[in-house]
Amino acid sequence: MKIARFSHDDTISYGIVDEDEHELVVLKADPLFAGFDPTGERVPLSAVKLLAPVIPRSKIVAVGKNYHEHAAEMGGEAPAEPLLFLKPNTSVIGPGDAIVLPPQSEQVEHEGELAVVIGRIARNVREEDAEDVIFGYTIANDVTARDLQRRDGQWTRAKGFDTFCPLGPVIETDVDFAAGTIETRVGDEVRQQGRLADLVHSVPAIVAYASSVFTLLPGDVILTGTPAGVGPLVDGDSVEVTVSGIGTLQNPVRAAVQ
Amino acid sequence: MKIARFSHDDTISYGIVDEDEHELVVLKADPLFAGFDPTGERVPLSAVKLLAPVIPRSKIVAVGKNYHEHAAEMGGEAPAEPLLFLKPNTSVIGPGDAIVLPPQSEQVEHEGELAVVIGRIARNVREEDAEDVIFGYTIANDVTARDLQRRDGQWTRAKGFDTFCPLGPVIETDVDFAAGTIETRVGDEVRQQGRLADLVHSVPAIVAYASSVFTLLPGDVILTGTPAGVGPLVDGDSVEVTVSGIGTLQNPVRAAVQ
Repeated sequence: MKIARFSHDDTISYGIVDEDEHELVVLKADPLFAGFDPTGERVPLSAVKLLAPVIPRSKIVAVGKNYHEHAAEMGGEAPAEPLLFLKPNTSVIGPGDAIVLPPQSEQVEHEGELAVVIGRIARNVREEDAEDVIFGYTIANDVTARDLQRRDGQWTRAKGFDTFCPLGPVIETDVDFAAGTIETRVGDEVRQQGRLADLVHSVPAIVAYASSVFTLLPGDVILTGTPAGVGPLVDGDSVEVTVSGIGTLQNPVRAAVQ
Repeated sequence: MKIARFSHDDTISYGIVDEDEHELVVLKADPLFAGFDPTGERVPLSAVKLLAPVIPRSKIVAVGKNYHEHAAEMGGEAPAEPLLFLKPNTSVIGPGDAIVLPPQSEQVEHEGELAVVIGRIARNVREEDAEDVIFGYTIANDVTARDLQRRDGQWTRAKGFDTFCPLGPVIETDVDFAAGTIETRVGDEVRQQGRLADLVHSVPAIVAYASSVFTLLPGDVILTGTPAGVGPLVDGDSVEVTVSGIGTLQNPVRAAVQ
C-alpha cells in the first residue's frame, strides 16, 4: 500500500494511492496517528502536488557508511556498529521541490537512500520485533556539502542545510528487501546503484540500535545509508532516486539566491 | 521576566513567575506561540512541578568547544567558526528529573550551559538583529557519554540518549551577559565555573551562524557551550547548574534499570 501526503485546492491531505485508477483515496487525517479512515472522496493523482509524506516531529536519524563500497570511496570501512547522525526536520522538502545549493559550500553531493518511517513509540526494540514499529518506507536524498563535512568533522552543518533532506514521493508499507534495488540518476547519468540486501546493517538492526539510544516516535525517519557513487550536484541539475516498489523521488537543483 | 512550564492538578500550563509572592501567574497558552494572556488564576510555586520550559518541535542545536579552557581540556582549540551538532528532543527532561546512565557507556559527564530559546522563524539573521529572534534564556546540561563520543567520532549517540538534555528551571527573558556567570556542582563539589562574557562565539554570533545553515523555528533551543571542568556523573549523584539571573537546574543521576 502506498500512502501520500498532498496538497489539493490549498488543503493538505493524506491519501492511499490507487495505482490502477491513478487516483488518491482521501483519508480523514494523518494515518500515522489516526488510522486509515477514508473521507469518501477520490482525487486524480494528476490534480495534486505530492508533498514530503512525513514531517518528523522529533528525529531524522541517519546511518553513515552502511554500504561497503561507499565506505571505501569515503576512504574507510563500514563501522562495526551503525554510525548515527541527525538531520533537522527543517531540511525536509518534498518531491519536485528544489535542493538549494548554499553559498557556504562548493561541493554539494547526492546520496540516494531508503528511508524507514517509524509508526510507534519504540525504545529498546529487539531486531526480531523491529517490523512492529515500522509504519513504512520512503525514499530520501541525504544531500551533503562534502567540503563542509570534511572541514567540520561533525556532519551536522554539512547535512543539515534547509532543503538537504528530500523525502518521498510516497510511503510504501511493503518493500522486497531480497530483490529491492536503489538507483540515483543525475540527468541521464546513472550515478549510484545498490541492492537493499547489501546494507551492512539491516533495517531491523538499525531500528534496534537506534532505539537503544533514543526513544523513536511515530513519524521519526531513519535514513539507512547510501551506495557507492556519490557525486556533485550543480545549478540546473535534476536528481532522481528510485527504489524498486516505492517509486522515484525527483528534485531539481538550484543555486541560492544571494 | 521568568516563564515556567509546569504541571498542576494533572494539567500542563505555562505561567509567569511572581518572585515576590512565590506564585505563578497562569497563562492561557504557550507564550511562545500565543503571547502573555493570563487566565486570572495564580498558583503557589510550591504546589507545582516545574517541567522543561520548552520542548523543541524542530531542533536543539549545540555548539562544541565554545570556551577556550574547555577546548583545551578536550585536547584542542576553540574552532574559528561555531562547531554545530544536534541533540534530539527526546533527550529533553525537566528540572528534578533523573539523568539515566545508559548501559552502553562507562563515562557519562556533565556539561553545564546557557541555552537560548528561539522565539521567531529565523533565517540568515544578522548578528545585530539576533536579539529580535530570541525569546529568552534557560539552563541546559549537555550530558555526554565521553567514551562513546571518542569512539564514534560523530557525537550524535554520545549526546543523544534519552534524559541527556535537562532544561530549566525557567526561561528568563533578560540575561546580563557582561556580569553573568555559570557554575556546575555535583553534590557539594564545584566542577565548572565560567563567565558568559568568555563565550568564544557570542550568542548573537551563534544565532547568526546557525540561522545561515538551518531555518530556526520558535521553540528551537541553542546550547552555547560549556566551560572547563567537565567530569563524571555516577549513580546517586545530584548535579546542579546555576546561571546568575536564571536560577538552578538540578537533576539526580541514576543507573539504567536493566
